[in-house]
Amino acid sequence: MNTRTRAVVGALVGIGLLGGATGLTVAQADPAPQPRPAAVVQQQVLSADAAIKAAQAALDAAEAKGQHVTVSIVDRAGNERVQLTGDGAGPQSFESAERKAYTAVAWGKPTSELGEQAGGQGATLRDIPGTLFLAGGVPVSAGSPIAGIGVAGAPSGDMDEQFARAGLQAIQAELR
Amino acid sequence: MNTRTRAVVGALVGIGLLGGATGLTVAQADPAPQPRPAAVVQQQVLSADAAIKAAQAALDAAEAKGQHVTVSIVDRAGNERVQLTGDGAGPQSFESAERKAYTAVAWGKPTSELGEQAGGQGATLRDIPGTLFLAGGVPVSAGSPIAGIGVAGAPSGDMDEQFARAGLQAIQAELR
Amino acid sequence: MNTRTRAVVGALVGIGLLGGATGLTVAQADPAPQPRPAAVVQQQVLSADAAIKAAQAALDAAEAKGQHVTVSIVDRAGNERVQLTGDGAGPQSFESAERKAYTAVAWGKPTSELGEQAGGQGATLRDIPGTLFLAGGVPVSAGSPIAGIGVAGAPSGDMDEQFARAGLQAIQAELR
Amino acid sequence: MNTRTRAVVGALVGIGLLGGATGLTVAQADPAPQPRPAAVVQQQVLSADAAIKAAQAALDAAEAKGQHVTVSIVDRAGNERVQLTGDGAGPQSFESAERKAYTAVAWGKPTSELGEQAGGQGATLRDIPGTLFLAGGVPVSAGSPIAGIGVAGAPSGDMDEQFARAGLQAIQAELR
Amino acid sequence: MNTRTRAVVGALVGIGLLGGATGLTVAQADPAPQPRPAAVVQQQVLSADAAIKAAQAALDAAEAKGQHVTVSIVDRAGNERVQLTGDGAGPQSFESAERKAYTAVAWGKPTSELGEQAGGQGATLRDIPGTLFLAGGVPVSAGSPIAGIGVAGAPSGDMDEQFARAGLQAIQAELR
Amino acid sequence: MNTRTRAVVGALVGIGLLGGATGLTVAQADPAPQPRPAAVVQQQVLSADAAIKAAQAALDAAEAKGQHVTVSIVDRAGNERVQLTGDGAGPQSFESAERKAYTAVAWGKPTSELGEQAGGQGATLRDIPGTLFLAGGVPVSAGSPIAGIGVAGAPSGDMDEQFARAGLQAIQAELR
Amino acid sequence: MNTRTRAVVGALVGIGLLGGATGLTVAQADPAPQPRPAAVVQQQVLSADAAIKAAQAALDAAEAKGQHVTVSIVDRAGNERVQLTGDGAGPQSFESAERKAYTAVAWGKPTSELGEQAGGQGATLRDIPGTLFLAGGVPVSAGSPIAGIGVAGAPSGDMDEQFARAGLQAIQAELR
Amino acid sequence: MNTRTRAVVGALVGIGLLGGATGLTVAQADPAPQPRPAAVVQQQVLSADAAIKAAQAALDAAEAKGQHVTVSIVDRAGNERVQLTGDGAGPQSFESAERKAYTAVAWGKPTSELGEQAGGQGATLRDIPGTLFLAGGVPVSAGSPIAGIGVAGAPSGDMDEQFARAGLQAIQAELR
Repeated sequence: MNTRTRAVVGALVGIGLLGGATGLTVAQADPAPQPRPAAVVQQQVLSADAAIKAAQAALDAAEAKGQHVTVSIVDRAGNERVQLTGDGAGPQSFESAERKAYTAVAWGKPTSELGEQAGGQGATLRDIPGTLFLAGGVPVSAGSPIAGIGVAGAPSGDMDEQFARAGLQAIQAELR
Repeated sequence: MNTRTRAVVGALVGIGLLGGATGLTVAQADPAPQPRPAAVVQQQVLSADAAIKAAQAALDAAEAKGQHVTVSIVDRAGNERVQLTGDGAGPQSFESAERKAYTAVAWGKPTSELGEQAGGQGATLRDIPGTLFLAGGVPVSAGSPIAGIGVAGAPSGDMDEQFARAGLQAIQAELR
Repeated sequence: MNTRTRAVVGALVGIGLLGGATGLTVAQADPAPQPRPAAVVQQQVLSADAAIKAAQAALDAAEAKGQHVTVSIVDRAGNERVQLTGDGAGPQSFESAERKAYTAVAWGKPTSELGEQAGGQGATLRDIPGTLFLAGGVPVSAGSPIAGIGVAGAPSGDMDEQFARAGLQAIQAELR
Repeated sequence: MNTRTRAVVGALVGIGLLGGATGLTVAQADPAPQPRPAAVVQQQVLSADAAIKAAQAALDAAEAKGQHVTVSIVDRAGNERVQLTGDGAGPQSFESAERKAYTAVAWGKPTSELGEQAGGQGATLRDIPGTLFLAGGVPVSAGSPIAGIGVAGAPSGDMDEQFARAGLQAIQAELR
Repeated sequence: MNTRTRAVVGALVGIGLLGGATGLTVAQADPAPQPRPAAVVQQQVLSADAAIKAAQAALDAAEAKGQHVTVSIVDRAGNERVQLTGDGAGPQSFESAERKAYTAVAWGKPTSELGEQAGGQGATLRDIPGTLFLAGGVPVSAGSPIAGIGVAGAPSGDMDEQFARAGLQAIQAELR
Repeated sequence: MNTRTRAVVGALVGIGLLGGATGLTVAQADPAPQPRPAAVVQQQVLSADAAIKAAQAALDAAEAKGQHVTVSIVDRAGNERVQLTGDGAGPQSFESAERKAYTAVAWGKPTSELGEQAGGQGATLRDIPGTLFLAGGVPVSAGSPIAGIGVAGAPSGDMDEQFARAGLQAIQAELR
Repeated sequence: MNTRTRAVVGALVGIGLLGGATGLTVAQADPAPQPRPAAVVQQQVLSADAAIKAAQAALDAAEAKGQHVTVSIVDRAGNERVQLTGDGAGPQSFESAERKAYTAVAWGKPTSELGEQAGGQGATLRDIPGTLFLAGGVPVSAGSPIAGIGVAGAPSGDMDEQFARAGLQAIQAELR
Repeated sequence: MNTRTRAVVGALVGIGLLGGATGLTVAQADPAPQPRPAAVVQQQVLSADAAIKAAQAALDAAEAKGQHVTVSIVDRAGNERVQLTGDGAGPQSFESAERKAYTAVAWGKPTSELGEQAGGQGATLRDIPGTLFLAGGVPVSAGSPIAGIGVAGAPSGDMDEQFARAGLQAIQAELR
């Protein structure tokens, strides 16, 4: 093992300590009975079952209020895992929901909080492709952000966020 | 029927009550002689004939004023159904007209009214892909928005909107 | 009413007769108590509830076989209404599933049948953007195609199609 | 005038002689009373009125046969000038119709004739972006190709072409 | 000839009167010896020779000042006809030059003048895809705008515009 | 727990048994001391350190043979994690390398083996967007595919594959 | 200097020996009076002046034959440096010319020779994005390929190639 | 040699004098023993070895601070040469890092300095496609800008810039 490699491994140990912050754990630091390969890192991912459950709950909450929305679940890799479009949801809701979910999982905060940071006169976070900083996106965290829930189509971002939170609520107990 | 299914059906009944607001009627709630399948919802769509008539009227109105424009009709699914480009219309008019029509049908309001909401310092509706909040887009409604008419190419958005309204006027009687 | 308009209305009546073939009914030919506006056509759309039910059934069928897939439901307008990505599904499955669903609803046949038509030496249907003629897409019909179910990610297209058919089976009774 | 310029002007005179083949005439060779600027070339463009007339005729022909299609008119610059989507036309018809029209005006032949050239084992014309060599596109010529008419959505390319030809027929007399 | 057709022809006569404003003349209103077909409109296009001459002059002007730029000529259809990239021009200059040229020919004004209109708090012209309202684009007019010259890569938009104007100057005499 | 949920959990247990095939383990089935949340699945990811090491080894192997290539490492989510472009590599190598890596990790086989499956007369795997079935892509597996290594730019796919395998070789010991 | 670095430098010396093959020379191996920085490699690029000269010659050759084409010069980085579109060139010629030039410089051979390699039943070079293997592209070499000349728009690829070769001929003497 | 050619050569001599500003030297003005072809310009490019070294140093600096980032090196042609994504970096970091690097090399300044220029009410540099003016991009210069280093993913642009500067620092000595 040469110096460069050692330095990097040192950094990885640092990651191990901070592991909860990114949903990653270094394989060889894992106290599991079966040691995992040195080149492999463990990443926490929201299960498909939980993702569908959260999306359905968000859609149900919207429909209970007579709102026609799209719900999207995006994972930490930026891929959409679930999309549910309710009856009568407008065409702008498809991509808006996905972008809100993407933004929430990328920054690990609700888009309603990020919206303030994304304003101002010069360059802003809104210039980053794929993002949308309107209210309606909330992160799903298991120590660190592992997914985002995005809702779009209601008359206000506040309502969209309320439905997204209903989705999060439905799986909250399974995230601890 | 388990609880989850019941809850959803309940929500659908709610939609039925609000049906006029989205151009959808729940099939089984329809008092028509031939009951429609439970899995099918009825959606109202602007007929091709009416869409062409409206677009031609908007183009005629523009040409009567010596203006060179593109007219676009977009349906509630976000698809362009009619595009008419007048002689001499500039290249920016093609997509501008479509985006104005898209925006009008997505939000169900004239783009000139939405423009105010789309401003401000932070995140705005303008960040949603496919939209254009300049004046010149008007919704076509049959209870709820079923299409948008967009016009682009005149020297001002006010003129574009005037032509779009002429298009709407031409089919207004057939929408009641 | 001038001649041209009459001719078109005649054509529309023809559509009315063929209505089952496209999921459309001309509004004024509808024997419902409340006559609908002349400019409006009724379109049949798969309900969100049925779409989610079909997608979940397809995913369940795949998981029961230990397969990791994405399931997509695309409506007749070409828009994705539901996407469910199972745990461990490969990255190629996201868009493959959507394209299979799109192709099935556009042509109203299973992609496995269309694949034969899409071959040959010269220009083929495969040249049309947005399509994918690999097995795994099946249409959902209510007289005419109203949606497509696409599955991708299993080791063979035959398996993908089997899961898509399981999704269709789950809502078949509600389509009559 | 230096040698290079002379050579180019010579070439332009050659173009003048061949002018009918491209719809262009060199301005200064034009025997019109008002001489046009030296830097300007005259290009023949299908009028918006004729384009709409042709598209409507093609759509009428399709509807008379109970077919649900999109009709597109593309000019020699490659821009879509008219799009008419009939009731119930499938989602694949939007871009297919435009690409057939584009291909017909670019090569100045019906796509059904070009399809044979576009086949074979190695590189083919089908590799050129924006093209579609399926039957259903026909060129509009006024000496040289000035537009293309594309139809898509019928069960066979032969039918699509028949409707496109009906559109061409409707304006044929005005092209001489 | 029915009423609708008459009305449109009337509008076209109006265009004939305004013809100079769009570079279009209605064929049958043309007093040339050889009458042109009724369905054809004449469009004025900048000749390739003049376009190359203007672009070379703009590039020469930039190089004379030691500036490394891209020059683009875009026609009224929105297509790039000439692109010249000087030695050492930065990668951002390729598309910037084209967009400035596009914007200048679309609105018929220098981008430096349009920049003011394109500002403000709400929706702006900058939201229209394909545009760039930074200084450096100037229109080429022969009665009406027929092309745009765009330059990008100099340290300031003022310099870019100066070079674009040098390009215009080189063909000015041939535009009258 | 209702019936539907039970069925799904049953399926998940099935996944647990097949876990090695996808790099996923169901959280609650994990015999680790710290139980993980029920909604979370563990995914194995190639560490950044190993990815860089493999890419550097592939590039070194190419340079040792005097070949100018791009090396790409793509993870199971389809995201590029490492790109190294050697001196003098051609412009086509950038995206080719990434697509080969993507294809290898998506199907879990070398692209040289998949190439045969991707041929034939009708629809093929090559129709799936983002793929490239030319030799030069090899999967990285830790039980199941967790990444792909793609190399492009050498005169033959055989050479590209040889370099990709050198990259894999460099981290092979750390994968067990 | 550690082992890894030594190995790479060794490879770079190998590149130095092969330098003519890629248009690159390692800076410190250059016998020029002013030694260049160690981190810098010299790359040969076709001058803008020569690129324009070649493009103009290709366009002149096409016009001398009465052909309406687009000529494109693409550099080794894959960027278009010059585009000249002749009067009356079809819309498909814009991108075809660029892609032929791109393909010629990427593989360092005329596209007419590469076309044979790009055929066959399975995966082919044609699957690589941005390429076009139709005749009409020729590389510009100064020891190694530094640019490509692409021509498109003539009725046959043979003619396109003849014009591209005329462009190459015009600068051949300056490449030695 | 005619007048136009002489004028251009004069301009090229001017470039020679300014050569350091663009990383280009005119071939025939080079006092090297082996005279280079007249049509060829020498361009300075960051070597792959130095690019990788800088990227690794930037990533190490980020990991030493427990930050999860993507590092990108973009050359003066606008092509990404190196991408390194650290463990746990968010999905928005991939393209953000590349765009920051692109912006830094295009304008030859750190993005943190350019951000001020990119603000304001009207058209701004932010409207140029492919750019990102958030802090975290720094240029690599060898007399003139030859590459950009971009870092994204840390909680603030200041941190991103600090890591990018660490990358630059690692190769600074080799740039003189």
